[in-house]
Amino acid sequence: MTAPRTTDQDSSAPPPLGGPKETGRVEAFSDGVFAIAITLLVLDLKIPKSAELGTRSLWPAIFAQWPTFLAYFASFATILVMWVNHHKMFNWIHRIDDVFLYLNGLLLLFITFVPFPTSLVSTYLTCPQGRSAAAIYAGTYEAIAISFNLLWNYAARGGRLLGAHASPSQVRAITRQYRTGPILYLVALVLALFSAEASFAYCLLLAVYWSLTGSLAFFRKEPVSKFDA
Amino acid sequence: MTAPRTTDQDSSAPPPLGGPKETGRVEAFSDGVFAIAITLLVLDLKIPKSAELGTRSLWPAIFAQWPTFLAYFASFATILVMWVNHHKMFNWIHRIDDVFLYLNGLLLLFITFVPFPTSLVSTYLTCPQGRSAAAIYAGTYEAIAISFNLLWNYAARGGRLLGAHASPSQVRAITRQYRTGPILYLVALVLALFSAEASFAYCLLLAVYWSLTGSLAFFRKEPVSKFDA
Amino acid sequence: MTAPRTTDQDSSAPPPLGGPKETGRVEAFSDGVFAIAITLLVLDLKIPKSAELGTRSLWPAIFAQWPTFLAYFASFATILVMWVNHHKMFNWIHRIDDVFLYLNGLLLLFITFVPFPTSLVSTYLTCPQGRSAAAIYAGTYEAIAISFNLLWNYAARGGRLLGAHASPSQVRAITRQYRTGPILYLVALVLALFSAEASFAYCLLLAVYWSLTGSLAFFRKEPVSKFDA
Amino acid sequence: MTAPRTTDQDSSAPPPLGGPKETGRVEAFSDGVFAIAITLLVLDLKIPKSAELGTRSLWPAIFAQWPTFLAYFASFATILVMWVNHHKMFNWIHRIDDVFLYLNGLLLLFITFVPFPTSLVSTYLTCPQGRSAAAIYAGTYEAIAISFNLLWNYAARGGRLLGAHASPSQVRAITRQYRTGPILYLVALVLALFSAEASFAYCLLLAVYWSLTGSLAFFRKEPVSKFDA
Repeated sequence: MTAPRTTDQDSSAPPPLGGPKETGRVEAFSDGVFAIAITLLVLDLKIPKSAELGTRSLWPAIFAQWPTFLAYFASFATILVMWVNHHKMFNWIHRIDDVFLYLNGLLLLFITFVPFPTSLVSTYLTCPQGRSAAAIYAGTYEAIAISFNLLWNYAARGGRLLGAHASPSQVRAITRQYRTGPILYLVALVLALFSAEASFAYCLLLAVYWSLTGSLAFFRKEPVSKFDA
Repeated sequence: MTAPRTTDQDSSAPPPLGGPKETGRVEAFSDGVFAIAITLLVLDLKIPKSAELGTRSLWPAIFAQWPTFLAYFASFATILVMWVNHHKMFNWIHRIDDVFLYLNGLLLLFITFVPFPTSLVSTYLTCPQGRSAAAIYAGTYEAIAISFNLLWNYAARGGRLLGAHASPSQVRAITRQYRTGPILYLVALVLALFSAEASFAYCLLLAVYWSLTGSLAFFRKEPVSKFDA
Repeated sequence: MTAPRTTDQDSSAPPPLGGPKETGRVEAFSDGVFAIAITLLVLDLKIPKSAELGTRSLWPAIFAQWPTFLAYFASFATILVMWVNHHKMFNWIHRIDDVFLYLNGLLLLFITFVPFPTSLVSTYLTCPQGRSAAAIYAGTYEAIAISFNLLWNYAARGGRLLGAHASPSQVRAITRQYRTGPILYLVALVLALFSAEASFAYCLLLAVYWSLTGSLAFFRKEPVSKFDA
Repeated sequence: MTAPRTTDQDSSAPPPLGGPKETGRVEAFSDGVFAIAITLLVLDLKIPKSAELGTRSLWPAIFAQWPTFLAYFASFATILVMWVNHHKMFNWIHRIDDVFLYLNGLLLLFITFVPFPTSLVSTYLTCPQGRSAAAIYAGTYEAIAISFNLLWNYAARGGRLLGAHASPSQVRAITRQYRTGPILYLVALVLALFSAEASFAYCLLLAVYWSLTGSLAFFRKEPVSKFDA
């Protein structure tokens, strides 16, 4: 803001603090943004008004909000999967520069945006405007998936910001993995043209599938696939 | 999100950064979520409307909100006790993997949810719907207690993610301690079938008791019980 | 929450991670709570409604909110001074235990509460209920000041949790300093019996004075007073 | 808060924890404030009311909010640029003292304030009150730019808080860079006297330009300018 010209030199100039310190603070700032975005989602859950309810049961009023609860859960799971991947990406990254900081900022822009499409889809899922809401929801995740790829590709291209422990074959395997994200959310976008429920259910299932794939990995005795295979 | 297949290898692959760095960031992200969830509770306290109050005293309007203040305090104390336990758990854990990250995410899902049942119980405690609200409140804590056990048991089973300093007898003692949580909140759930006030008061007392047990520990000259006894 | 009996042993048992790691995470969690409480204050500033304003100037509608802006500034400055002191306290503290964690939690309870009395005083400062609002505002800071003293005294008593670099005379000097807090806010409480404006202005001036005393320290060539004097 | 006299000695007294630990916690607290302020911006995006919309399309109701989306993006980008600069500044700073903590607090005061002028400009940009709103928006950034200069100049004057790796010519170059901030936002303030749209567009372009200058730096093969030139 106050420094109009930010060149690579300013960030790379001070050598003694270079690597670990800078990475640590990008991670801390990103963790903060992820943690707040994931926690703000709860503000969308509405308390049924006591006056409107009278003496009727609370349960129907709660269950009537099922799209809101589902959207809350879907967005929570998706942001969590994103955070896990962001966290893992930094296992390989040992240096940062200005480009990386702003590409990371682009990713965080779409992550802080998530509460808006979440609220939109929970309000309009069963309305005539459902498909528009689902398209904005899927479009937000598409933007996040593309930002993720930009960030990783910038860091990994020629091993630019990676540590010495990253072998070229490992890096290629991760690049291939991340590349499926934008394709899978493009499917969600196309689905939204036909059915709001289908597109949203697909986004929800993606997040659940990725969480379970991670969570259930311990049932496998042997590693399923070698990274360098 | 962007990485559909997340296997144990990606997280364990980079050896030089493995242990301490990964644990640090899970704790930082979790701390952020705990800190935000505990601070958002204050948004539930309502400022009495100046126009409605006229020239009457502020105090009755404040005291009329006593269920809100009590629920604020009960949820603050409970989240604090959870955080203390989460913090202690990580004294023993030296490694993480994907399963652990997603089980921790499950715990955080219910923690970010706490403001909703808190607001529900403060709105409906003295209404005909009080027992339903108290059941959702107790149910949320039951879910947290179960998640805690899943997380710890996964980490501790066969010393999977523990440091070398954790003796089997210590680990068994902690496992026994944590196991009481789901039982105690099951009592709260059953109480909610009969009385909203009894169930909520019981949840409040549990949090206060645990906080005081910790806080008053310094009055004891000698450790009350040996861990390995 | 899930661990009913939390004794000193669990936290002190794992020796290799003991000191630095535990302190770090208490500070991180506390920093999160301070940072969120200080940032939530802005939500109290209201945007004048466009429909009500018509074509009239924005400025009178903004200036009419002066108690809100002043309360925002006073609470920001006070939380900032608290954070600086919390931060400094941890320069001396090298170990933690359960009692310390819960006393720190008591301090954080009142800090997360600050947005409520801030909003109360900004709504009622110029109303007949002003003195009640000012009393709740001053009372919150009184509670924070007392918690601060409890926390420090517990840590410092017999050097319980301090590092070896803390000399007894330094510790006594800090104890004397902190002891003035509860007395100064007791004055604010008494002032609130007579005048809302006087009590609030006094709280505002205390925060500004402490900030300026810190900020202007660099104009002094020589240290004004020796700590051990 | 509880320590009325905060002198340089308290912070510099404990030598073994001095440098890195103190800097780390200021950065963590500042990161928290930046992360929350940047994430709270999303709360300004309003969900069109389902009842008002009937069966009409969602898109016009979304596009009608274009000033809100633009203001969200402009403020996100500006806070991000600020954070990047704050982060870089700490590459050079190895020590802190009380004055620095409170000057940093002044900067954070204006950063937590950003959601208010953002909401103001998104409500009034196309209204008769637009120029007032744009002036408050530009004025907030002017205050941030000035705080940034105060903070850096205090740290850099005579190398007061800098590490030994900072050469005088580098420090002078950064000082020159930062000095342009207040001048550029003064232009925004003057523009607001004539046109709300021009002033806001200029603020938006500044943030985008700075982000792109950083992000596109990798297209340059050779460093464009030597820092010490």
